[in-house]
Amino acid sequence: MEARALLRFFFILITALLLLHLFTRSWLHLISDKADLLNCSNYSPWCTSKNRFQPKSNNLLLNNPEKSRTKTTQNHKTQIPHHPLDPLTIQEINKARTILLSYAPFSSSSSFTVHSLVLEEPEKTLVLNWKKGDPLLPRQASIIALLNGQSHLITVDLQSNKVIHHEITKPKSGYPTMTIEDMNSATWAPLYDPNFNRTIINRGVDLADLACLPISTGWFGIKEEKRRLIKVQCYTMQGTVNFYMRPIEGLTVLLDMDTKEVVEISDLGLEIPIPKASDTDYRFSKQNKPLQMRVLNPISIEQPKGPSFVIEDGHLVKWANWEFHLKPDPRAGVIISKAMVRDSESGVLRNVMYKGLTSELFVPYMDPTDAWYFKTYMDAGEYGFGLQAMPLDPLNDCPRYARYMDGVFTASDGTPFVRSNMICVFESYGGDIGWRHAESPITGMEIREVRPKVSLVVRMAASVANYDYIVDWEFQTDGLFRIKVGLSGILMVKGTPYDNMDKVPGHEKLYGTLLSENVIGVIHDHYITFYLDMDVDGSDNSFVKVNLVREETSPEESPRRSYLRADRHVAKTEKDAQIKLKLYEPSEFHVINPSKQTRVGNPVGYKVVPGGTAASLLDHQDPPQRRGAFTNNQIWVTPYNRSEQWAGGLFVYQSQGEDTLAVWSERDRPIENKDIVLWYTLGFHHIPCQEDFPIMPTVSSSFDLKPVNFFESNPILRMPPNLEKDLPVCKAADSV
Amino acid sequence: MEARALLRFFFILITALLLLHLFTRSWLHLISDKADLLNCSNYSPWCTSKNRFQPKSNNLLLNNPEKSRTKTTQNHKTQIPHHPLDPLTIQEINKARTILLSYAPFSSSSSFTVHSLVLEEPEKTLVLNWKKGDPLLPRQASIIALLNGQSHLITVDLQSNKVIHHEITKPKSGYPTMTIEDMNSATWAPLYDPNFNRTIINRGVDLADLACLPISTGWFGIKEEKRRLIKVQCYTMQGTVNFYMRPIEGLTVLLDMDTKEVVEISDLGLEIPIPKASDTDYRFSKQNKPLQMRVLNPISIEQPKGPSFVIEDGHLVKWANWEFHLKPDPRAGVIISKAMVRDSESGVLRNVMYKGLTSELFVPYMDPTDAWYFKTYMDAGEYGFGLQAMPLDPLNDCPRYARYMDGVFTASDGTPFVRSNMICVFESYGGDIGWRHAESPITGMEIREVRPKVSLVVRMAASVANYDYIVDWEFQTDGLFRIKVGLSGILMVKGTPYDNMDKVPGHEKLYGTLLSENVIGVIHDHYITFYLDMDVDGSDNSFVKVNLVREETSPEESPRRSYLRADRHVAKTEKDAQIKLKLYEPSEFHVINPSKQTRVGNPVGYKVVPGGTAASLLDHQDPPQRRGAFTNNQIWVTPYNRSEQWAGGLFVYQSQGEDTLAVWSERDRPIENKDIVLWYTLGFHHIPCQEDFPIMPTVSSSFDLKPVNFFESNPILRMPPNLEKDLPVCKAADSV
Repeated sequence: MEARALLRFFFILITALLLLHLFTRSWLHLISDKADLLNCSNYSPWCTSKNRFQPKSNNLLLNNPEKSRTKTTQNHKTQIPHHPLDPLTIQEINKARTILLSYAPFSSSSSFTVHSLVLEEPEKTLVLNWKKGDPLLPRQASIIALLNGQSHLITVDLQSNKVIHHEITKPKSGYPTMTIEDMNSATWAPLYDPNFNRTIINRGVDLADLACLPISTGWFGIKEEKRRLIKVQCYTMQGTVNFYMRPIEGLTVLLDMDTKEVVEISDLGLEIPIPKASDTDYRFSKQNKPLQMRVLNPISIEQPKGPSFVIEDGHLVKWANWEFHLKPDPRAGVIISKAMVRDSESGVLRNVMYKGLTSELFVPYMDPTDAWYFKTYMDAGEYGFGLQAMPLDPLNDCPRYARYMDGVFTASDGTPFVRSNMICVFESYGGDIGWRHAESPITGMEIREVRPKVSLVVRMAASVANYDYIVDWEFQTDGLFRIKVGLSGILMVKGTPYDNMDKVPGHEKLYGTLLSENVIGVIHDHYITFYLDMDVDGSDNSFVKVNLVREETSPEESPRRSYLRADRHVAKTEKDAQIKLKLYEPSEFHVINPSKQTRVGNPVGYKVVPGGTAASLLDHQDPPQRRGAFTNNQIWVTPYNRSEQWAGGLFVYQSQGEDTLAVWSERDRPIENKDIVLWYTLGFHHIPCQEDFPIMPTVSSSFDLKPVNFFESNPILRMPPNLEKDLPVCKAADSV
Repeated sequence: MEARALLRFFFILITALLLLHLFTRSWLHLISDKADLLNCSNYSPWCTSKNRFQPKSNNLLLNNPEKSRTKTTQNHKTQIPHHPLDPLTIQEINKARTILLSYAPFSSSSSFTVHSLVLEEPEKTLVLNWKKGDPLLPRQASIIALLNGQSHLITVDLQSNKVIHHEITKPKSGYPTMTIEDMNSATWAPLYDPNFNRTIINRGVDLADLACLPISTGWFGIKEEKRRLIKVQCYTMQGTVNFYMRPIEGLTVLLDMDTKEVVEISDLGLEIPIPKASDTDYRFSKQNKPLQMRVLNPISIEQPKGPSFVIEDGHLVKWANWEFHLKPDPRAGVIISKAMVRDSESGVLRNVMYKGLTSELFVPYMDPTDAWYFKTYMDAGEYGFGLQAMPLDPLNDCPRYARYMDGVFTASDGTPFVRSNMICVFESYGGDIGWRHAESPITGMEIREVRPKVSLVVRMAASVANYDYIVDWEFQTDGLFRIKVGLSGILMVKGTPYDNMDKVPGHEKLYGTLLSENVIGVIHDHYITFYLDMDVDGSDNSFVKVNLVREETSPEESPRRSYLRADRHVAKTEKDAQIKLKLYEPSEFHVINPSKQTRVGNPVGYKVVPGGTAASLLDHQDPPQRRGAFTNNQIWVTPYNRSEQWAGGLFVYQSQGEDTLAVWSERDRPIENKDIVLWYTLGFHHIPCQEDFPIMPTVSSSFDLKPVNFFESNPILRMPPNLEKDLPVCKAADSV
């Protein structure tokens, strides 16, 4: 090596190390602020992931409830499974890892990464027949590992300590969900590239202020195939923790996720200034302007006798007339299983749903330019919706009497870690009315009967980088359950040269709303697709469209010319159940049990009550829409198939859309009187507005599953009203 | 008169008197049960209406707060108005009545009836300019009275004690809202008709068990014109207070409302048995079967420091950043006026809405047969949505810390009465999240900021005979307000010979669902149309459709084929703003102030966020749909016009639809940069199910008015989180 080259090498090396040091210091400073939030006593991924700032401390892998600010009481180290659907325990994960590490080719390689290590659920029929007191069904772990660019699907039996299934999957496309370590490393890997660093400095950003985000690439043709790629975009943290509002616009780094090599740097936004830091920090401690409203007195949902639900054996929730199994999942977030409701006449527990979960998300941004076109996130399959669900904030994320459940997940080296307080369960009462009737002055009868509405909420909140998704499963005593998604957090914004709309040339496309000086909130959609394996009084169900149709009367038949008639159509095959909702062609959508009728002969059922509907309008041949084709309809029904759970496919990352719900449904299999799965997609079109800056007030939408001739009559007829004598006696905190 | 005729006359007379005695006794028995609910100390219409059971006792027209079970503290006798929009006081109503009684032709006639006597609101500009401390604007009363079949529209000036406007309205069709006395008398007038009584006895019903309902006739052609008609249908109370479930099917009495003459009896359902009484009573005291669920522990929204809102001078509500005027209205129920929100930066109160109210309802049943075709209720204009709003049940209709407001209304003789606790105002917290963000493991920054969502609810519940409508106006600190309608109460059902679906011949139309033996819940729609006089930062506003349209990229432009573009269209005239919502043609609908921009140049605005949408599918030429033509679109915008407030017309009863919103809008007046009114219709299709028997669990829908570039940024950025130290300290009631 000649002297000049050597000199240049040293210069680059020293610069890189210096910058790395600065960068590290900056992150560490932030981390040390509130060390109990993500500390190692809670087994945070921060500790167990292979990040470069903190050593992995296995001896800290004990839960420390005293230090926990919340009500986690689980001792994960000694936890054992009680139910066939209970998630893998710490011990089981360690065991599975040990078996894997002694199994070729993993025994001879240290370069594999574990992308998923979860319970392999027993066959549905076995679970349905299992009763408490029976011996636990065989425990198995399902592992997805990546080795030399190949995805391995492995099943490990935890009794026999053996690998009982091993498949090197050869899908046409797609990689497993990223690990936290994949995402972390993508944020700092570009710093090893001098060209990248020069680019940053060229933008006037101090490398110590740099914050970068790993952005899934989607798939846009052959150029990006055959290796795991990710795009990295960066921001400056200078002057704010809300770096999302300070993009280095137009700079996109294409990175090989496995080699950490920078493949390409696109640097197109040189003329675009970085938006200002002022008024972007959202932390309460940093607010120094007046609130400009009357301060609210303390308000709280109080239950001095405690909540009315129990969580038996860690996962079995029993409340009012409901029972269900609840568990965290790294991909879906929350899984509700074996949801049953007690019959209001017989008292017998009746099946409603075998399994319900968030199957996939699809979040396409509406900007076709270089730094934006690929932003078409599929958050569950790419990032792990559960992996991104952070510990909930007691008293703010959930009310006072909430109970919390931890997630036990797996780091990329196969070691377990605990995501504390990932799910909360609480009873909600906001003043709503369950049912009421007062006799009117017309009849004059002195009757006024009112019942308050109390519900049970299961909540998680996933923070997929900037955005926060609040997912609620809300159960009502009348048998209805509601699935609600709230959107909050921080917009993904775009830098612009403009600081006022009057400076934007008429022909110029902004692709969004000018939110603040030099900040555009780009238009985007959110689709959240739910998997709902309905088992209404048994597994074999049918899907019925009840269409409301205008019927014209014949002359002389009636003084009325028209009325609405309800026509029932039982869907025979999958294509009969691909539903695009139409306001002017209204329908109800029932999942019924054709073998069971009520006393007066109606088939028992549940109906899906649409809400929060937005339809994807993208071209069906657009690569993102091919991958997100599960949003082509709002409702789908498929026959139960163990392998069809993830609407965007098992391997979503860089997938080409050949394994989606839309593809499965195209087979048009019979669905009448079969074990069927209902799929529903909640949609949001989001045109940002200034109120979304610098952090968004929550916007929510929901849909319902509602009993329809499931009960013989109103199941909450006998609910007692509130009586003054039963309500708590409270004092203000400062008067005690 | 010959002897036989005389004998027959006496027989009929004695029978009638005997039956009347029995009937009276039965009602009185029910009334005496809980005498404080509708007692005369609360000036109930029961006392002041000209009913036959209780004498009108003017000396009881004093409020008696000690006897009141709720928090009413108003002394109505001494109440004086403080704000130009305050409703008429007892004294003012009495004064207006006195003036009317000394004014010809009313001074010389005792046969007129007062159908409305309310404040004539001052001109909008005067109200907008009025400030607290200014002299009160002149007080005037607007009276609608019926005399000899003619509607008189009268304005009385309460300062000069003069009638200042008198118009004998000659609309092509339509009568004023029924009085409570009209409705009451219709329920017993048929009993004076021996043929009616014979018909009842022939159905096997004891007249002492009879309960009849007054059903508006709608309008179906010339046959029913030129007099005020009503249809009466009856039920038996034998064995249940829920007589609605025991129809004497097919029996319809056409009654002249003024002469009380039975015009026609249609008796077509002789083969249909009266459904059984068992399991229909919904009162808690009558339930004797087990609840079949785990009993819920007491749960309550607690505010030991009291609620955070005040109601100044009886009607001005101040909470958080909101201020608005609130009053009860006999027709609309709740009227919200001069709603203003405080700017989060400047602290200045900014106008949002001048007036909001429930303008009309339309409830067509979907059965064209003789006893059902005419059931096409317009509850506000026919029955009085406020008149039907009964006293709310503390702790069950509204949470513990609610405050109540009474309605001061007018009986048909012009005397005032008080509907106590007609509206409640309370703060709601059900565990929802105002905004949140947690940093994810990707960035690793230790940030978790969450704000709970607390809102302010204004509620009333109207019991229009069987049905209960719960109307909520819910205000959020982020500037959004939500209008929510809950449907509960009791179905209007139809008798049928069938007790099981397997006995129904395949060709036979049921027009609904078999809910129980011999009971059909008939399919029907509910439309609730809201009048929203938006004044966003001033009266002159524009309506903007922001259409999301698919844009296809050109070749080589982008790896993406398509994205969504937002196109703004300012509506020039009314027809531009007649909106039928379409899922596949999505839009946002903004009311903006074109003269005011944010700092970065966006027009300030509010958007209506549709929800609870169902479209009426009836033939537009069907008589009910002509009358309910205001439901032909989901959104309309009209220029402000003082006389256009009631979407179905001022005189809705038996109207033919020539004075509806649809007719006004057809004029296609300019609406750009004008004082405009937004109309939104919430819709429900209701196919009843067995769970709705014998009383319906509440079904709710809502729509939102949401700031869109109204604030410079998130207006609740500086809200504090909940802290443990501020929350109340509570004990169980039985542990104190």
